[in-house]
Amino acid sequence: MTLFGQYVIHLYMSDHKFFPLSGREMPRFGGIKTFFRLPVANLSEDFDVAIFGVPFDGAVSYRPGARFAPSKIRETSSLGRGYHFSRNLSVFDALKVADIGDCSVVPMSVEKTYELIEKFSTKVLESKKKYISAGGDHSTTLAHLRSVKAKAGKPLSLVHFDAHLDTYPAAWGCEYHHGAFVRHAINEGLIDPKSSVQIGIRGPLAGDSDVNFNKEHSLRYCTMDEIRGATSLASFCASLPAYEKDQPVFLSYDIDCLDPSCAPGTGTPVPGGLTTYESQKILQSLKIENLVAADIVEVSPPYDQSDITALAAVDVMFEILCLMRKNI
Amino acid sequence: MTLFGQYVIHLYMSDHKFFPLSGREMPRFGGIKTFFRLPVANLSEDFDVAIFGVPFDGAVSYRPGARFAPSKIRETSSLGRGYHFSRNLSVFDALKVADIGDCSVVPMSVEKTYELIEKFSTKVLESKKKYISAGGDHSTTLAHLRSVKAKAGKPLSLVHFDAHLDTYPAAWGCEYHHGAFVRHAINEGLIDPKSSVQIGIRGPLAGDSDVNFNKEHSLRYCTMDEIRGATSLASFCASLPAYEKDQPVFLSYDIDCLDPSCAPGTGTPVPGGLTTYESQKILQSLKIENLVAADIVEVSPPYDQSDITALAAVDVMFEILCLMRKNI
Amino acid sequence: MTLFGQYVIHLYMSDHKFFPLSGREMPRFGGIKTFFRLPVANLSEDFDVAIFGVPFDGAVSYRPGARFAPSKIRETSSLGRGYHFSRNLSVFDALKVADIGDCSVVPMSVEKTYELIEKFSTKVLESKKKYISAGGDHSTTLAHLRSVKAKAGKPLSLVHFDAHLDTYPAAWGCEYHHGAFVRHAINEGLIDPKSSVQIGIRGPLAGDSDVNFNKEHSLRYCTMDEIRGATSLASFCASLPAYEKDQPVFLSYDIDCLDPSCAPGTGTPVPGGLTTYESQKILQSLKIENLVAADIVEVSPPYDQSDITALAAVDVMFEILCLMRKNI
Amino acid sequence: MTLFGQYVIHLYMSDHKFFPLSGREMPRFGGIKTFFRLPVANLSEDFDVAIFGVPFDGAVSYRPGARFAPSKIRETSSLGRGYHFSRNLSVFDALKVADIGDCSVVPMSVEKTYELIEKFSTKVLESKKKYISAGGDHSTTLAHLRSVKAKAGKPLSLVHFDAHLDTYPAAWGCEYHHGAFVRHAINEGLIDPKSSVQIGIRGPLAGDSDVNFNKEHSLRYCTMDEIRGATSLASFCASLPAYEKDQPVFLSYDIDCLDPSCAPGTGTPVPGGLTTYESQKILQSLKIENLVAADIVEVSPPYDQSDITALAAVDVMFEILCLMRKNI
Amino acid sequence: MTLFGQYVIHLYMSDHKFFPLSGREMPRFGGIKTFFRLPVANLSEDFDVAIFGVPFDGAVSYRPGARFAPSKIRETSSLGRGYHFSRNLSVFDALKVADIGDCSVVPMSVEKTYELIEKFSTKVLESKKKYISAGGDHSTTLAHLRSVKAKAGKPLSLVHFDAHLDTYPAAWGCEYHHGAFVRHAINEGLIDPKSSVQIGIRGPLAGDSDVNFNKEHSLRYCTMDEIRGATSLASFCASLPAYEKDQPVFLSYDIDCLDPSCAPGTGTPVPGGLTTYESQKILQSLKIENLVAADIVEVSPPYDQSDITALAAVDVMFEILCLMRKNI
Amino acid sequence: MTLFGQYVIHLYMSDHKFFPLSGREMPRFGGIKTFFRLPVANLSEDFDVAIFGVPFDGAVSYRPGARFAPSKIRETSSLGRGYHFSRNLSVFDALKVADIGDCSVVPMSVEKTYELIEKFSTKVLESKKKYISAGGDHSTTLAHLRSVKAKAGKPLSLVHFDAHLDTYPAAWGCEYHHGAFVRHAINEGLIDPKSSVQIGIRGPLAGDSDVNFNKEHSLRYCTMDEIRGATSLASFCASLPAYEKDQPVFLSYDIDCLDPSCAPGTGTPVPGGLTTYESQKILQSLKIENLVAADIVEVSPPYDQSDITALAAVDVMFEILCLMRKNI
Repeated sequence: MTLFGQYVIHLYMSDHKFFPLSGREMPRFGGIKTFFRLPVANLSEDFDVAIFGVPFDGAVSYRPGARFAPSKIRETSSLGRGYHFSRNLSVFDALKVADIGDCSVVPMSVEKTYELIEKFSTKVLESKKKYISAGGDHSTTLAHLRSVKAKAGKPLSLVHFDAHLDTYPAAWGCEYHHGAFVRHAINEGLIDPKSSVQIGIRGPLAGDSDVNFNKEHSLRYCTMDEIRGATSLASFCASLPAYEKDQPVFLSYDIDCLDPSCAPGTGTPVPGGLTTYESQKILQSLKIENLVAADIVEVSPPYDQSDITALAAVDVMFEILCLMRKNI
Repeated sequence: MTLFGQYVIHLYMSDHKFFPLSGREMPRFGGIKTFFRLPVANLSEDFDVAIFGVPFDGAVSYRPGARFAPSKIRETSSLGRGYHFSRNLSVFDALKVADIGDCSVVPMSVEKTYELIEKFSTKVLESKKKYISAGGDHSTTLAHLRSVKAKAGKPLSLVHFDAHLDTYPAAWGCEYHHGAFVRHAINEGLIDPKSSVQIGIRGPLAGDSDVNFNKEHSLRYCTMDEIRGATSLASFCASLPAYEKDQPVFLSYDIDCLDPSCAPGTGTPVPGGLTTYESQKILQSLKIENLVAADIVEVSPPYDQSDITALAAVDVMFEILCLMRKNI
Repeated sequence: MTLFGQYVIHLYMSDHKFFPLSGREMPRFGGIKTFFRLPVANLSEDFDVAIFGVPFDGAVSYRPGARFAPSKIRETSSLGRGYHFSRNLSVFDALKVADIGDCSVVPMSVEKTYELIEKFSTKVLESKKKYISAGGDHSTTLAHLRSVKAKAGKPLSLVHFDAHLDTYPAAWGCEYHHGAFVRHAINEGLIDPKSSVQIGIRGPLAGDSDVNFNKEHSLRYCTMDEIRGATSLASFCASLPAYEKDQPVFLSYDIDCLDPSCAPGTGTPVPGGLTTYESQKILQSLKIENLVAADIVEVSPPYDQSDITALAAVDVMFEILCLMRKNI
Repeated sequence: MTLFGQYVIHLYMSDHKFFPLSGREMPRFGGIKTFFRLPVANLSEDFDVAIFGVPFDGAVSYRPGARFAPSKIRETSSLGRGYHFSRNLSVFDALKVADIGDCSVVPMSVEKTYELIEKFSTKVLESKKKYISAGGDHSTTLAHLRSVKAKAGKPLSLVHFDAHLDTYPAAWGCEYHHGAFVRHAINEGLIDPKSSVQIGIRGPLAGDSDVNFNKEHSLRYCTMDEIRGATSLASFCASLPAYEKDQPVFLSYDIDCLDPSCAPGTGTPVPGGLTTYESQKILQSLKIENLVAADIVEVSPPYDQSDITALAAVDVMFEILCLMRKNI
Repeated sequence: MTLFGQYVIHLYMSDHKFFPLSGREMPRFGGIKTFFRLPVANLSEDFDVAIFGVPFDGAVSYRPGARFAPSKIRETSSLGRGYHFSRNLSVFDALKVADIGDCSVVPMSVEKTYELIEKFSTKVLESKKKYISAGGDHSTTLAHLRSVKAKAGKPLSLVHFDAHLDTYPAAWGCEYHHGAFVRHAINEGLIDPKSSVQIGIRGPLAGDSDVNFNKEHSLRYCTMDEIRGATSLASFCASLPAYEKDQPVFLSYDIDCLDPSCAPGTGTPVPGGLTTYESQKILQSLKIENLVAADIVEVSPPYDQSDITALAAVDVMFEILCLMRKNI
Repeated sequence: MTLFGQYVIHLYMSDHKFFPLSGREMPRFGGIKTFFRLPVANLSEDFDVAIFGVPFDGAVSYRPGARFAPSKIRETSSLGRGYHFSRNLSVFDALKVADIGDCSVVPMSVEKTYELIEKFSTKVLESKKKYISAGGDHSTTLAHLRSVKAKAGKPLSLVHFDAHLDTYPAAWGCEYHHGAFVRHAINEGLIDPKSSVQIGIRGPLAGDSDVNFNKEHSLRYCTMDEIRGATSLASFCASLPAYEKDQPVFLSYDIDCLDPSCAPGTGTPVPGGLTTYESQKILQSLKIENLVAADIVEVSPPYDQSDITALAAVDVMFEILCLMRKNI
């Protein structure tokens, strides 16, 4: 153990290795909080995956608080480790990952925030990095899809974990809110609905017309009944599409796909959801050769309990990193 | 003190439709809180199901707080929707439902509270409504059973979700407490034990004699081991009795049938309980042609976390409404 | 979307008296929650003061949650009583007061919310009622001032309790946020700065130029040092202006004028603030003959502890009602 | 430090010294929790002051939870020490004090609980001990007054700290509730109102008639305005009566005399109350030669925050012990 | 019901029966808190199983707080009952069990605490009792293993529930911390790795070398994937070893083997863990003829929610008592 | 506003200005959390005051958690501003301040942690910076005093805010714990007791001998009675010593000097303490020409409520920065 200034040196060292600060150099409760205790880096540096925060909750319809998610996830990710048991993968050996800070937002304007996210994420993509965005509410995903699709040059496949369909129409005269990004993404041609999939969907809904948009666009939604009604979780997983290298994929994980017992800290919780174990198994089963970017959204720390929701989010980010390793 | 009606209020709309206030007219966090954002109505109005609160916790043996359940459930039910996915049912189209306020109680007297509940619920039944009562501790169910049995003219079948048998003897010289209503209900001839069923029961118990009352009266109790030990949840559900139209049924749902991870906000939690998903599936499988009334009890908001217990209660009330639609 | 009246409901009683529901008819933890357990009324009815909520927090710069304040204040006001000890006044005898529900809002648009508030509050004023608005964040006050000034026909005097000056410039390209209403109110000619006063101000500030706006406009700000440095609290109170009948006054009470120990449940708390007792004494000392309307803002229930912040807000609303009685 | 079994030995040792278990023998977070870490004793043993709990909250009108106060106060009193700075008194040297466990109660019956308390406290008094009762709600004080008055043979002087007068009439047909003990005590001749005093009283009240009972019976009530309006706290203290040895006194301390910022964990908090420092000074100023017994009531742990209310209660109990030393 | 002093008498009575204080003598929220409301006893008395606390958290690497576990578990165990449903066993009839208080600790020294635990537990074993220790962090288990192995005269089999392997090397120059006891136990020859088993293990880990120690020593670790991937939970249980009478067993239960939804109150939670029901079934399936001692560790009350973690711990202790009955 | 990567650039820019990141560039809830949103710097850079964390709580005697204080204070300091109202000082214009990360610690060893702190703080001092350390428990102060005294070459004057004297003897065989640093500091000759002062001291104490150490060494302790009993707060402040430039001063602020209502989040709270306003006034009155270093200790986030304790700590750090400006 170096006796002095590890963390400062870690942040500034000329040869940093994009590796998490070890709990043996600095106990995990210590140090400035970055995602997974990774170094903070500038996009000009040479690494593979950028993680950043999008501290925005201006488009939620019930409980706010997701603006504090990036900060809380950074703190909780101090508990993170890098070796994946069932994949036999040390992800931070396989990938160079860095925290690049937060994308700025305008708390009272979805539209202005969209502009900021688009510019920010475009720069990340232009630097040839993949990325994970720690939101923020689910409205923000639309801006990511715009950037990623523009860079990819073709509609993306969306792998979407959520309790909600997020295809809802405008509300209160506002097109953009946290339950509408899928509708916009399809209408704007950002995603290819036929190769996309929604996982964790459950009711109650507002009405039977809620699924019409899905039906019109052949967007598959896997309800909890489909998942739990399958012969086994593995057989459900086997039913999910596999994505080849030429098909760019965006993974959007709304923490409310999880059951409220596992993720109380979210804005619009719905009983009867996934356990964290089921979520792990589904994520581990995904076959995605080109996962360009991902986000984790709707973590609301003021409603969390003992940080278990943030911890679940960290675990998802770890699984996503493992998925990203595949084709780099 | 006027015993009835002082808080039986209604929403003033010349053409009200017994339909929840839409989240698009008023965001769900806004407005005076009524059950499911329904109008408040007077019993003289024409609707099908009345929901009311019974804010009583004077008979609990451990953690109090259920007196605040009606208020908290009203607030949390703002998140409720009306369309049931797997039933393909818009329940508020199928049923006219209203909030009729709370039944008054006497916080320090079970007996006086029983009188108030009996008068209140009798009036509801006389107005030819079905009802859901949001308790309150489980002692209150006895008063409901008295009214409903009197109106039905024959013993009821009880469908009873609980971790506890609630057949316990008097305690501290008090016949009536939150663990004794089943014993009284059978002894008073209010329910028919042979066609009744208890779901979610688990130990530890005080002693092996705890199940004697059940055995004597042939009252079936389904333990967690029976439920989880079945070939599948569906096969367990198939084993439950079906109730024809001529058999009046009362459904009593003690939130502590759920596991503490799903329902921490209750007075006497017991590990190893149902998940909310299992509870949904069991409720959805019930075959009840004449569900006259129901209650949801033992939600204790001071011990809840992020309102997940109240949210589970709202979800149960939604399932109960769907069950009530059948024979109206 | 209907802009007005969908939630303007009333209690149905043929002879209602605009009097709080007694705790003896229904224990205070029971019943549908309205402000001070008052009847819900339509503006066409004959009463003096309307109380309504403005569940908006879309313009806060730090902790959100004020959208839940109207609901929480209604609940907590169940503990309210009507007799003022030192004034020897039974305020609900002296005034007919009703809850008129919430003004709808657009969670993600300050501007659209302003329109809704202006229409709503104008209707209230047109019905010849005074009012108290339970916010909501402090951005909402501007809309109230617009309506009240328009109705009064002359600039208002503002009595403003706050830790902050709220004269800050636009942020992130947005003119309207929760720290700017005073600047706009003066620039729009809504208030007369010279007869207005700010109470509870304290630092740290962003810079010494922060007070320039006050100085330019001769808007008095009473710092905690001025209040605590006075010979006595009474002598400070005596220094406050008295407002005659011809001078319409708006009182805006930001709960963060109180110390965080008394009001933890707020968005931008500042140590070193008023105690609830000091606040009571200052409110009781005010000489206002024509208090047209008032608001209480920045109560953030997700950050409250045991509802003490909401309780402080209820107490302030009671003092405001007493002030309103004067000239009706 | 003894290496083995200190605590067990402490409880059982033949020569225990009625002295708190030292934090040096067992860290303060360790050990079975008794009041002030004192030994548990039988009344037949030779000590001066008994402390016991009365875990009853069956007569509260708003937030319950005081049933958990004895347990929580025992735990928190682990932080207690015995030397009083300004009195220069080591109270556990001056007095032999023991924990005698809890008085049993009947959670759903005030009357049956009164019987239990009267029998219990009478036995304590018959064993020639003074006592402190850790309640419990304020209804329980009446039972104490009955026992103590019976033993004293003459009406007691009551020194009563409270936000409320507790002279309220029956509610919901129940004579006995947590806001009525003073009325009963005077009507039953248990206390002498003219030599009694109430400290910390504040509004709002239900009406101006609320103070009539006090006026009729010449029972002095010191409002917060009287306390804070005095030239100094010392001058207010000097105005309180002194009690000679021949006048038996009961001190009843309702934790809601304190401001909600200091005591959030109580059933019916009222803003504008005493600070803990003011309470200390008033208690230290009391001149009571014969303080026979005392209680501390209305601590509601489910509503406490970081145990600060329980800690305030422990501090009050320490001051009471110091007061009791005087005439033993 | 005895009217006076039940609890004091219970503690002191000459003929106490090592039976929990009944909830009918004293409601479960009342009384001085001991494990399962059992009498406090001296080791010289005649009973079978001693329960004691080890309030130590000086060796945790993330969230502390386990020092408060013994106190909180005592309180929560008030809800405990003695009859095991599926075993048809009244455990407190079958076993004489007592609370012997806490073992003292040195909060800032693992080594000194080890000495204290070893002396304490050795005395317990010398008195021919089995025991359950309520920790405390997981570092403390090593001291227990030393005592128990010394008494047994041969290496023990360890049945170890945990999310973590606890075979980690020294950290910060400290050999002893809460993630290293298994390594030391094997290196010191205290346990026989080949007959031991770890249950609930899951990642992420620090690296693939983390399992090397297990492999070298043939210590079986059952991951969540192994448990959930088995044909059924019963078939997994059947794969666990059976221990004959001549093989002394120590059971160490780290509460973080449970999922964070079931056990949020722990220091280093890991998503994807056991449910309380699964844990019950595994514990019930164990075949251990000679369970000498056990501990339950890593319950951290400051991070618990509504005491559900402590309640889970109580449930585990009840199952352990049932296991201990077998061979006494 | 720069649209991209403000924060990253802020951390890395070649010409950074040691100025907090503006809330207008990045809303205060966004960005990686550093003290006061200051840049992270290496000691080789040119600035005046270093702020760092010492995340250690291994020497507390009651509630742990202070290890999380640096992280929580960083987060809460996002609300900080730089302009001091009554001093008319923009502190970040007057001083160049930077966050230099955390000093590493050994969670289970006070002695090893002392070594780390001494080396760390010595390096800071050698780089000719003043510093503020955000602890951590109060044991850590001793290590600071060793470094600062060594660098100063003469005993320091200690200005010590605390509820406790911290002169207590060894406990459990451990010389170093969180209540002993003053004793060691005097015994080691690190501070000059005659020119030092303790502020906020209150009882109860363990015994009258507790103040003997102070008396022997002529170390002044100002009790709450002295502070509140003074003619005015200003007159008390005037009684405090003034320190000339040749007298190096260390200021140690234990957050428990504040009342538990203002600082619930601490390990050993004591009722009857300072308000945040009183603390501000005392800090503002201090006359210290050479404040070399300071620490703020005993903030325990797991016990905080709505971050008010952390917020009070941030406010103290702001006052300390203002004090440090004087002689640079």
